[in-house]
Amino acid sequence: MKAMNQFAIGVDYGTNSVRALVVDTADGREVATHVYNYPSGEAGVLLDPSDPHAARQNPADYIEGFYQSVGCAVQRAAADPSFRPERVVGIGVDTTGSTPIPVDRNGWPLALAAEFAGELAAHAWLWKDHTGYGEAAEITEKAKKVRDKYLNKCGGVYSSEWYWSKILHCKRSFPKVFQAAYSWVELADFVPAFLTGNLDPDALPRGICAAGHKAMYHEDWQGLPSAKFLAGLDPDLAAIRDRYAVPALTSDRRAGSLTAEIAAKVGLPAGVAVAVGAFDAHMGAVGAGIKPGTLVKIIGTSTCDMMVAPMNSPLVDIPGLCGIVPGSIVPGMYGLEAGQSAVGDIFNWFVKSLAPAQYSADGDGHAALTRAAEQLCPGASGLVALDWNNGNRTVIVDPLLSGLLVGQTLHTTAAEVYRALIEATAFGALVIINRFEEYGVKVKEVVNCGGIAEKNPLVMQIYADVCNRPMKISRSAQTCALGAALFGTVAGGGYKSVEAAQRKMTGVKEMVYKPTKAAAAVYAELYRVYRTLHDAFGTVGVKHRLHGVMKDLIRIRDEARRGSG
Amino acid sequence: MKAMNQFAIGVDYGTNSVRALVVDTADGREVATHVYNYPSGEAGVLLDPSDPHAARQNPADYIEGFYQSVGCAVQRAAADPSFRPERVVGIGVDTTGSTPIPVDRNGWPLALAAEFAGELAAHAWLWKDHTGYGEAAEITEKAKKVRDKYLNKCGGVYSSEWYWSKILHCKRSFPKVFQAAYSWVELADFVPAFLTGNLDPDALPRGICAAGHKAMYHEDWQGLPSAKFLAGLDPDLAAIRDRYAVPALTSDRRAGSLTAEIAAKVGLPAGVAVAVGAFDAHMGAVGAGIKPGTLVKIIGTSTCDMMVAPMNSPLVDIPGLCGIVPGSIVPGMYGLEAGQSAVGDIFNWFVKSLAPAQYSADGDGHAALTRAAEQLCPGASGLVALDWNNGNRTVIVDPLLSGLLVGQTLHTTAAEVYRALIEATAFGALVIINRFEEYGVKVKEVVNCGGIAEKNPLVMQIYADVCNRPMKISRSAQTCALGAALFGTVAGGGYKSVEAAQRKMTGVKEMVYKPTKAAAAVYAELYRVYRTLHDAFGTVGVKHRLHGVMKDLIRIRDEARRGSG
Repeated sequence: MKAMNQFAIGVDYGTNSVRALVVDTADGREVATHVYNYPSGEAGVLLDPSDPHAARQNPADYIEGFYQSVGCAVQRAAADPSFRPERVVGIGVDTTGSTPIPVDRNGWPLALAAEFAGELAAHAWLWKDHTGYGEAAEITEKAKKVRDKYLNKCGGVYSSEWYWSKILHCKRSFPKVFQAAYSWVELADFVPAFLTGNLDPDALPRGICAAGHKAMYHEDWQGLPSAKFLAGLDPDLAAIRDRYAVPALTSDRRAGSLTAEIAAKVGLPAGVAVAVGAFDAHMGAVGAGIKPGTLVKIIGTSTCDMMVAPMNSPLVDIPGLCGIVPGSIVPGMYGLEAGQSAVGDIFNWFVKSLAPAQYSADGDGHAALTRAAEQLCPGASGLVALDWNNGNRTVIVDPLLSGLLVGQTLHTTAAEVYRALIEATAFGALVIINRFEEYGVKVKEVVNCGGIAEKNPLVMQIYADVCNRPMKISRSAQTCALGAALFGTVAGGGYKSVEAAQRKMTGVKEMVYKPTKAAAAVYAELYRVYRTLHDAFGTVGVKHRLHGVMKDLIRIRDEARRGSG
Repeated sequence: MKAMNQFAIGVDYGTNSVRALVVDTADGREVATHVYNYPSGEAGVLLDPSDPHAARQNPADYIEGFYQSVGCAVQRAAADPSFRPERVVGIGVDTTGSTPIPVDRNGWPLALAAEFAGELAAHAWLWKDHTGYGEAAEITEKAKKVRDKYLNKCGGVYSSEWYWSKILHCKRSFPKVFQAAYSWVELADFVPAFLTGNLDPDALPRGICAAGHKAMYHEDWQGLPSAKFLAGLDPDLAAIRDRYAVPALTSDRRAGSLTAEIAAKVGLPAGVAVAVGAFDAHMGAVGAGIKPGTLVKIIGTSTCDMMVAPMNSPLVDIPGLCGIVPGSIVPGMYGLEAGQSAVGDIFNWFVKSLAPAQYSADGDGHAALTRAAEQLCPGASGLVALDWNNGNRTVIVDPLLSGLLVGQTLHTTAAEVYRALIEATAFGALVIINRFEEYGVKVKEVVNCGGIAEKNPLVMQIYADVCNRPMKISRSAQTCALGAALFGTVAGGGYKSVEAAQRKMTGVKEMVYKPTKAAAAVYAELYRVYRTLHDAFGTVGVKHRLHGVMKDLIRIRDEARRGSG
């Protein structure tokens, strides 16, 4: 009976905005949603003109973002006759990451103190901040030498995007901020801590997802890396370790209950269950129905490529992956994370920086360029690009790489370059799929979600053709928020397991993008060119034969043009 | 006394237009000029949508272009009180090339017959037509095997831009046009033949410049390559050889006299001397004051880089040059020609295809992008490009290469890319300077001319900084037309030698672009990156270490940004 329906709220903290989604826990039906755009910086990101690696966020945006997004979504949900605030069984929170926030002894972000308001380093260090690349290399170097092989669980290379790189870089470059910080709290942990009034850095629950994938937390060594190891990087890092509650928890666990004060601000009753937080992609993967054999690709400004494997699988450590962490996606299974450092960000960059007036006249450069790019045949532009404008996350794991475009003539068009950039991200996606399979993790299906998967059939068709596999689309357009709501439901007791909740609340669309044989054949050739460039520019110490690259592209182009003539 | 002044007319057939220039032979003073834009095709170039290598021109544009440009220039010259049509001592003609025109038994262009008007292959094959790349490779291959080493005089590689490649490609791909053509006449020879009424293909004077640089003509083997060699390529090519008057002539020679009919149309007396034609760059080099030790760079859509060396110099064959031909520039000296396949064409391509609205709002994308690019510091973009959008003419001599851009981030701007493209052409220029000097031809000064040298101080400053040499600018802005007029003067008896005429009629501007030390140091580093890419993508059979490219660019960028901070 409809009146007995229960509801959950997922709160999804993205790079530029936060979304709240109210769902019906019976079937995942989306009842109401609201998006709040961060007001600070450039679309929510604080930049440093003197350092293109820097990307920070204002913690005040997170707090106001909760009030605005959840408050409005709850108001809108009232339009559904079965909705009542008291039928909300739980709230789940997902965020970008690794996005650590320096906090004071009370767990309050330093940036919110007047003294540090103007200090970029005191703000949240957004996932795509790469300023700690030197420190990342140092951590990689030192971790290789210790017995516990901390990096085997995260691909063998520590990233500048991750927790310890950022903290160590802050210590080195902004010692005043570092000294003022009692601890560093991931955004995914900060929001539940704030919502439940448990901000004490020593005690607040830390999620296994952030801990395992970004902070080298693992049960094999009983938590974070040893005090000795961290002190070897910097004596002050060991203290951070001591202020980190263990064990880290999976997101089916309850972090606490919504405080009365916050509940009142958003129109909910006090005491609603709040789940332990996790990263957007991980909860998104659950919202997209991840299970063994299913690769979930969350395609946004960057991508996360997620898989799970049963705890009893003969899983070896996979080089170049961001991590293999028990329980980080689905409790009781290994969570495997890979990703591309920039996908939508590359398309956005191109539209903003290099699309001529004819494509921006009607205000939506993406739509106009997509229409033009759809008319082109695979291979006919003679172009190949590398998708490394923001570095490479998987499988090279190196932020100090850059974009590359080859094959330009005097007749190359903006639409051809735009398509080449889409194709480059597809080739990058295929490298990841191949890496999973090379190490025994069979990819039986690919489910895509995120804005680009929803809105751009050209991108999805190119992915199907390049990967030569069907591309499925998650039924929900708000997969991350749905996943968060699902965890809120489980934490609040609505289902007894994540899998049980997934069976009811998630699914894929009927429409599937299928590979076309002719396109797949051309892309197989172009992928070899991509892979040559990928290995030549991305691999240390090996010499490569590059002379064939331009020749092959011209030959492929001429064949493609004859074929289409 | 002013009333005794004599005048000459230079007629300069460029890629998009023809310019006539009336000059005072006493001092090279420019009395009047007129430019006629070719009405056919896209800015004078007939394109084939199915083949980006094709570039043709309508011969009717050349004829009408003479009437319009010379007729108007003569009319305008009347404003000069000392000018009289009967004081015109000679006309010189320079053209693009190799631009061969298929002609009938009477020397009349096939394209002007109704039967062939719609046939692209029957038109003039413009210099930048690369459709014969397969034939060029075949000619290179076969020429290497013959005793006379035909290619040693033109860099070791026969180009798709040249005479025999185009003719052979026509035979193979458009046999009907080939069969209808009695002979193939270079544009530089066609115009003087037309003006003097001596169109007979068997008899019309052929210029040494086109013959020597593009048709493998050399006195060492008494003219064109042997009938046996040509027949080995295709039996029908030997006939073309028999219909080619030898010896080929230098441009101080008189091709004939202006016919009464044409003279009347342009307001000149009949019988004015018409000099033997030559290529624009070669006459331009003379107009810019070329002499031993002086490199003249004619910078337009592409560049020609010209030097001369005394006939008694111990000159070895230089690999990768377009040619070393006695008398091709200055009679009695070796003419050395190198070049870049695209320079202005690359900038034009970028502005047309990839410049966002903010740079094209006021209609002149070049000016707006130049203003923005001027604000940037060398190295600060982290970008390096290869200038091969139209292939590489010197020193690789390969049209089947393409553009490359590396170093893009998510913050790369259009102005940064524009500057990187300018820098790429400067690096290409430096490769040529280095090649001359590696083979003993010392470059003591560089004189630049052409529209870009005149109008774009940013380009010239970058060239000075990249090459770490002063860049001088030819005094005349119409160097090619001035050079043509100078040859007209000499052919008409106004001076007894080209050198004597140069001393009076040519010179450089006072303003010199000098290299700055800091910029030169950064560019020396970037040149190494360019050279790595140049060799890796342009050289057959050798393996290269590319991993340092992106690393070096990021390091150089970070240093440049710190330096400028």
